[in-house]
Amino acid sequence: MIRFLTAGESHGPCLIGILEGMPAGLAITEDEIARDLARRQAGHGRGERMKIEQDRAQILGGVRYGKTLGSPIALQIENRDWENWRDKMSVHDPGDDLRTAKLSSPRPGHADFAGSIKYHHDDLRNVIERSSARETAMRVALAAVCRKLLLSFGIEVRSHVVRLGGVEAPLAYHDDSLDDLFARAETSCVRCADHDAEAKMVEAIDRAVEAKDTVGGVFEMVVTGLPVGLGSHVHHDRRLDGVLAQAMLSIHAMKGVEFGAGFSAAELTGSQLHDQIYPAERGVVRQSNSAGGIEGGMSNGEPIVLRVAMKPLSSLMQPLDSVNLSTGEATHALKERSDVCAVPAAAVVGEAMAILALMNPFLEKYGGDSMSEIHAHFDASPPSPWR
Amino acid sequence: MIRFLTAGESHGPCLIGILEGMPAGLAITEDEIARDLARRQAGHGRGERMKIEQDRAQILGGVRYGKTLGSPIALQIENRDWENWRDKMSVHDPGDDLRTAKLSSPRPGHADFAGSIKYHHDDLRNVIERSSARETAMRVALAAVCRKLLLSFGIEVRSHVVRLGGVEAPLAYHDDSLDDLFARAETSCVRCADHDAEAKMVEAIDRAVEAKDTVGGVFEMVVTGLPVGLGSHVHHDRRLDGVLAQAMLSIHAMKGVEFGAGFSAAELTGSQLHDQIYPAERGVVRQSNSAGGIEGGMSNGEPIVLRVAMKPLSSLMQPLDSVNLSTGEATHALKERSDVCAVPAAAVVGEAMAILALMNPFLEKYGGDSMSEIHAHFDASPPSPWR
Amino acid sequence: MIRFLTAGESHGPCLIGILEGMPAGLAITEDEIARDLARRQAGHGRGERMKIEQDRAQILGGVRYGKTLGSPIALQIENRDWENWRDKMSVHDPGDDLRTAKLSSPRPGHADFAGSIKYHHDDLRNVIERSSARETAMRVALAAVCRKLLLSFGIEVRSHVVRLGGVEAPLAYHDDSLDDLFARAETSCVRCADHDAEAKMVEAIDRAVEAKDTVGGVFEMVVTGLPVGLGSHVHHDRRLDGVLAQAMLSIHAMKGVEFGAGFSAAELTGSQLHDQIYPAERGVVRQSNSAGGIEGGMSNGEPIVLRVAMKPLSSLMQPLDSVNLSTGEATHALKERSDVCAVPAAAVVGEAMAILALMNPFLEKYGGDSMSEIHAHFDASPPSPWR
Amino acid sequence: MIRFLTAGESHGPCLIGILEGMPAGLAITEDEIARDLARRQAGHGRGERMKIEQDRAQILGGVRYGKTLGSPIALQIENRDWENWRDKMSVHDPGDDLRTAKLSSPRPGHADFAGSIKYHHDDLRNVIERSSARETAMRVALAAVCRKLLLSFGIEVRSHVVRLGGVEAPLAYHDDSLDDLFARAETSCVRCADHDAEAKMVEAIDRAVEAKDTVGGVFEMVVTGLPVGLGSHVHHDRRLDGVLAQAMLSIHAMKGVEFGAGFSAAELTGSQLHDQIYPAERGVVRQSNSAGGIEGGMSNGEPIVLRVAMKPLSSLMQPLDSVNLSTGEATHALKERSDVCAVPAAAVVGEAMAILALMNPFLEKYGGDSMSEIHAHFDASPPSPWR
Repeated sequence: MIRFLTAGESHGPCLIGILEGMPAGLAITEDEIARDLARRQAGHGRGERMKIEQDRAQILGGVRYGKTLGSPIALQIENRDWENWRDKMSVHDPGDDLRTAKLSSPRPGHADFAGSIKYHHDDLRNVIERSSARETAMRVALAAVCRKLLLSFGIEVRSHVVRLGGVEAPLAYHDDSLDDLFARAETSCVRCADHDAEAKMVEAIDRAVEAKDTVGGVFEMVVTGLPVGLGSHVHHDRRLDGVLAQAMLSIHAMKGVEFGAGFSAAELTGSQLHDQIYPAERGVVRQSNSAGGIEGGMSNGEPIVLRVAMKPLSSLMQPLDSVNLSTGEATHALKERSDVCAVPAAAVVGEAMAILALMNPFLEKYGGDSMSEIHAHFDASPPSPWR
Repeated sequence: MIRFLTAGESHGPCLIGILEGMPAGLAITEDEIARDLARRQAGHGRGERMKIEQDRAQILGGVRYGKTLGSPIALQIENRDWENWRDKMSVHDPGDDLRTAKLSSPRPGHADFAGSIKYHHDDLRNVIERSSARETAMRVALAAVCRKLLLSFGIEVRSHVVRLGGVEAPLAYHDDSLDDLFARAETSCVRCADHDAEAKMVEAIDRAVEAKDTVGGVFEMVVTGLPVGLGSHVHHDRRLDGVLAQAMLSIHAMKGVEFGAGFSAAELTGSQLHDQIYPAERGVVRQSNSAGGIEGGMSNGEPIVLRVAMKPLSSLMQPLDSVNLSTGEATHALKERSDVCAVPAAAVVGEAMAILALMNPFLEKYGGDSMSEIHAHFDASPPSPWR
Repeated sequence: MIRFLTAGESHGPCLIGILEGMPAGLAITEDEIARDLARRQAGHGRGERMKIEQDRAQILGGVRYGKTLGSPIALQIENRDWENWRDKMSVHDPGDDLRTAKLSSPRPGHADFAGSIKYHHDDLRNVIERSSARETAMRVALAAVCRKLLLSFGIEVRSHVVRLGGVEAPLAYHDDSLDDLFARAETSCVRCADHDAEAKMVEAIDRAVEAKDTVGGVFEMVVTGLPVGLGSHVHHDRRLDGVLAQAMLSIHAMKGVEFGAGFSAAELTGSQLHDQIYPAERGVVRQSNSAGGIEGGMSNGEPIVLRVAMKPLSSLMQPLDSVNLSTGEATHALKERSDVCAVPAAAVVGEAMAILALMNPFLEKYGGDSMSEIHAHFDASPPSPWR
Repeated sequence: MIRFLTAGESHGPCLIGILEGMPAGLAITEDEIARDLARRQAGHGRGERMKIEQDRAQILGGVRYGKTLGSPIALQIENRDWENWRDKMSVHDPGDDLRTAKLSSPRPGHADFAGSIKYHHDDLRNVIERSSARETAMRVALAAVCRKLLLSFGIEVRSHVVRLGGVEAPLAYHDDSLDDLFARAETSCVRCADHDAEAKMVEAIDRAVEAKDTVGGVFEMVVTGLPVGLGSHVHHDRRLDGVLAQAMLSIHAMKGVEFGAGFSAAELTGSQLHDQIYPAERGVVRQSNSAGGIEGGMSNGEPIVLRVAMKPLSSLMQPLDSVNLSTGEATHALKERSDVCAVPAAAVVGEAMAILALMNPFLEKYGGDSMSEIHAHFDASPPSPWR
């Protein structure tokens, strides 16, 4: 079973993550982690920050001679911007002269207001440093290690953007070879596999930049290669769709998630919707995947397909109406450097959270303390009880 | 902090639930629990089973003289149908003569297929008895106890059906006084607050009954009275939207969840979407609730609003195509008595899961081992750090 | 991974337990569970209650046709004494006439005092009903199911009493064939494998009965057949000795636990203590087991040996000095029917808690959802990395 | 509720720790953390390593302007020795020429043997780097933050050595004013409050140094100022003694733990042992503390007193008999730099683990997200239900 914790403020010295419970013997390099970090930093509409930072996670523990030891894995991503924030984000009280002015005008849509009440902070800086989506860089780094493990069992987690700034990509996962679709998405500046839609999405972002506004969208994720039976119907908190839904909604700015036919499933009748089962040479076959790969809270052998809705970001260059909480007067929300659109990045974070969420259902089924042990178990698992 | 486990098969002797971590001194009766169980059993389109069972939870532990003791609360709901299933569901092997025939043709959309592979069962009965949504009766019963606690702090969790079998109710939570809206929904046979839509929904169900088909829908849930700052932005798994999303998707047949503007948030720009903040006599005020009451993973003082999509049920009286897994031959799926539509019931289960999911964020903030202690803490919590 | 919760008051209608996470396909009967319950009820020095109750756990869920389903297992043990306590322990308030007098004079050594403060109870009955060691019957029942699983992998958990009422049994686990030792203990009325010591222990108990006093003791537990490498050195909370220590000290009246040489290890030098390693035909061999089978927080292939100290029980027939907390006046502690000595029973509870504590380290290593899958994994686990 | 994870190898670049769940507004400095780290490094009989390292934890997240933010706290302790181990402990495979020779002769008593089997390592270096007690430095650092919180509520956790290398200190916690006792222990080079015993303990260590051997001992810990009712009798895993026992046995080389009278409680009768209760001006009073401050799994208002047995360390300068696991031949165990005696240091680690273990029972009772909120709750908690 894995556990992980992350720490670090957006303009503090670094992000830190610890991943406990990984088996020994997994080959992993900092370069492989860097690859996913770079994917997260890409995308049309990102802000200035992404140009300052070129995220690279340093492995501080748990790996030796290129392989995991079984001990906790510690990663550190330095914040290059920290140099400019040493006083403003000082661990020690720098004294009256150097202390920076308090922020008191919360951004609608962000953690600022509720976080300051919850933690009794009279300076919104104390909230927004941790509520920033910069924290997701560490999730992506930790997940990159786990991705390596899942890949060795043929499990792939991939994503593409299907809607952005009001533009819909006509493609869905089933229209196409998945490999082609994701190859195109991977090279797209908005992570969209459809060229026409891509162009319109870029336009939508550019319009938002001009309007000092922000735009949201929807990404789709597909998990292939999962064995049948991850998750369980026997207890509510073991259902795989619930576990994945928590993971998706734990990402900043996500407002909805749906599996397979999702909300449109509510419109159809049972006979229209369900994925009927037919005999196949080996086992069974389906002609549709309305279930999105999950039946009864378990992976059913089909690709897991889910879509996640991201709202437009809450940090606008033309700030929204707000209140100065110190004075009670109407004002505009604080300005914090941010992106205009981060849907393509969010898709990569979505992959990371899906990977992390799938790890324990996977490890629970196969067990083992080393890669060789897990593979031996995986290969030895009994065949179907049928025939 | 609460923990709970449920057990019991659909046609076994009973459902059992244990709720650990409840404070002492909460007044609760079996009648109060029965009220929510009855709400779950109502609704046009329910099957024969609901006529057999009149669910009542017996309190077997944790309550004395009408008040909780602080010790774990144990509830038992008898399955009246058990009388007809003693042999088929015998704990002991009844011998070759009495053992019932194995089921081998999985229902598309249900746990049957994946569950039999996962648990290595060559009789689908061994899966479907626990994957049945009957299990949710116990969730509702356990949540009825917690509902009492939250209510004493002014927190209410209510639901209504906004879409069913393709019919949409024009009302949403903000169109109306919430009390009126939910009062109407409570008396509706489809839990719908709009009379015209209700009539059409009933028609849709009746059509499905005739067609031996099933229909799904969408319910909306509103949580009012929550203090600001439940959940947290500081760690991914403490975000309240993620916690609630897991709870919703842990319910049988749910395929999507969205908060506030939800998927439509992806279509708007930031300036259109976000709930701007204005000065008010006491604190601040908003003129919209696109966030659905959650910002930065925390309750922000506005009602929490979420919608959940339910697919049409998987047990059809005109069974879908399937495969006899024992022989490999094409056949129709097994027939199991079920409902034609359970969206109104699902809404009540949704309330239950939301209540259970909110308990720990609430208890984490206020602490305490007895109702008097929690109330003392609640009343003593410091005022806003602002002004 | 297993989870379990127990509920039920000592004189309530029953004890309830739910065990979630057990694999499917484990053969288990109520008779097998009853065997361990009977072992727990035996022993010289038990009180009247044990004559009233003949504990038998009824399986209410999770088992069909003699085998586990993979779904949560629910057990119920009826309290026969409940008939005499219906009013005193009524779930509903029976009204002023039937309500029993409140208890207000706490027993030194028991939960009475602290429990009443913690849960804000002004009637000690509200505490002592759950703090009674009767609750351990359910732990034993749940563990009996798990014992069956571990046994199928050759893992045995056994106990004997090595000290009671000041009498020490000269035998320890290494003096003898373990099978002989435990066979003798199993037939002893004080669970002691040495006949002379047994006689003196019985005398000590009889003396205490006469003096209206109570006696404690020490039991030793031995776990054989564990594979190397359960638990882990990599994180503090995964160390097997810590996990087992928690399990032992979670039992009523236990005041200490030690592994292998235990406290006497503190007296020796490293060269005297440690179990040196020698070549053997297959792998390695040791000539001592001072470590008690755990090195670096992991099972090392030798038997796990631990000893647990039990204080004399806190319910004396000649009650100790106490205070009537309602009036503040000096008085004697309340009288509650109890045993004079329960060390032999505690040893059986110790076995149960050890079994429950070992389950997750075991399942974590081997994984699997069915007995056939776990066995396949177990058999496939890679051989030693050495030679 | 807090959670924490630690990472880092003994000769890797650093130790890393993350502490999640700490409230906001706690004043903490790196100097305060350094104080406890220095206490852990002291003691007669420590090895060379302690001269190389002067541990100092750097705060990398969760603190701003001298106060906690409510976000996860990240600490880093650099290993100065790392400079000498860059190749031997390289994250990346340094290639055939630079890779260091594999270790294959396990030390009896250490994690080496079991760890290599568990994680399938054919180089013991891959085990011993994480199983080293150096890891406890991070536990001490994280606990130093929590100590600050508990201290603000008057809760103190202190320790002294009562037995070392066969020498027993005649003092126990009740012989003396606790403040005096711990003041003396704090200045003792073996953390012993008795001067005569101290001298003999130093001699015992010196003898062991000469003999290239190691010695163990026993430390006692006393927790004062705890409110009544932390922990709970209602569920086995919430019992405070079990929770503390796990914490103690999670420390390297600990082989036993006892509370209050501990193992000697097994020798006494109930009337001799239990701490009778007498009226006092405010509440009640006891004249003894055989229970060690815990009754029914809860703090009872008396000091919590526990003793922990530490075995002599497993790394001897005159190595014990072992086997070269690669060749199967008899040999001596590998040599790894270590201490001759670390009982005084272990006592400080014991304090740390007790502090960490007490945090959640404390936070569960009082709740709150900021120091001001927790204090408000603490002050508002209702008075005793009695009179």
